[in-house]
Amino acid sequence: MKDFRHQNRLYYSPVEFAMNYIGGTWKMPILVALREGPVRYGDLKKSISHITDKMLITQLRDLEEKNMVTRKAYAEKPPRVDYALTERAKQALSVIDALHAYGAFLMKEEEITL
Amino acid sequence: MKDFRHQNRLYYSPVEFAMNYIGGTWKMPILVALREGPVRYGDLKKSISHITDKMLITQLRDLEEKNMVTRKAYAEKPPRVDYALTERAKQALSVIDALHAYGAFLMKEEEITL
Repeated sequence: MKDFRHQNRLYYSPVEFAMNYIGGTWKMPILVALREGPVRYGDLKKSISHITDKMLITQLRDLEEKNMVTRKAYAEKPPRVDYALTERAKQALSVIDALHAYGAFLMKEEEITL
Repeated sequence: MKDFRHQNRLYYSPVEFAMNYIGGTWKMPILVALREGPVRYGDLKKSISHITDKMLITQLRDLEEKNMVTRKAYAEKPPRVDYALTERAKQALSVIDALHAYGAFLMKEEEITL
């Protein structure tokens, strides 16, 4: 597999490139929280346990730059902002589901019950 | 989704738990390199570009502790050690393939050609 550069960063494989878009603690929970359609910022924050405003805003900005989510502001009082998945991000949902299923399989193997 | 603890570490989701087994730069390339059956240490090292002995040994030990690979030493001169996937690890290959396919999709979207 040949290495390649993108935006000044070196990648060794397509897997590593994919993880740049969905990896880390918060990106997958955010993408899953948007799976049913546009969600207001406040509702998004409530739906992801443990995430701070600072972390959610940073991750949403990164996801927006990576064309994984769109941000829509409504001229309302109080201001309203919705976030939604792009087509590119919707393609990630099946991968995230596969990871979720594998995690559940490993939890069973390790006899972890919730 | 309820949090849960395993070996003194807190997890927020099964996805996070799965990434503990296959995440990071080197675990997935190692698992993929073992996909066709047992491989000798030296051949494994050669088949994964950029990996150092120190990194490969550390990752193999971690994967062994997580029951993802088995290590078999042969009483030969020079000594010979083979590594192989466990059943648990073989279940990860389809997830890694899905990540690889998503990464290739994103590379096409970003017009990255090798």
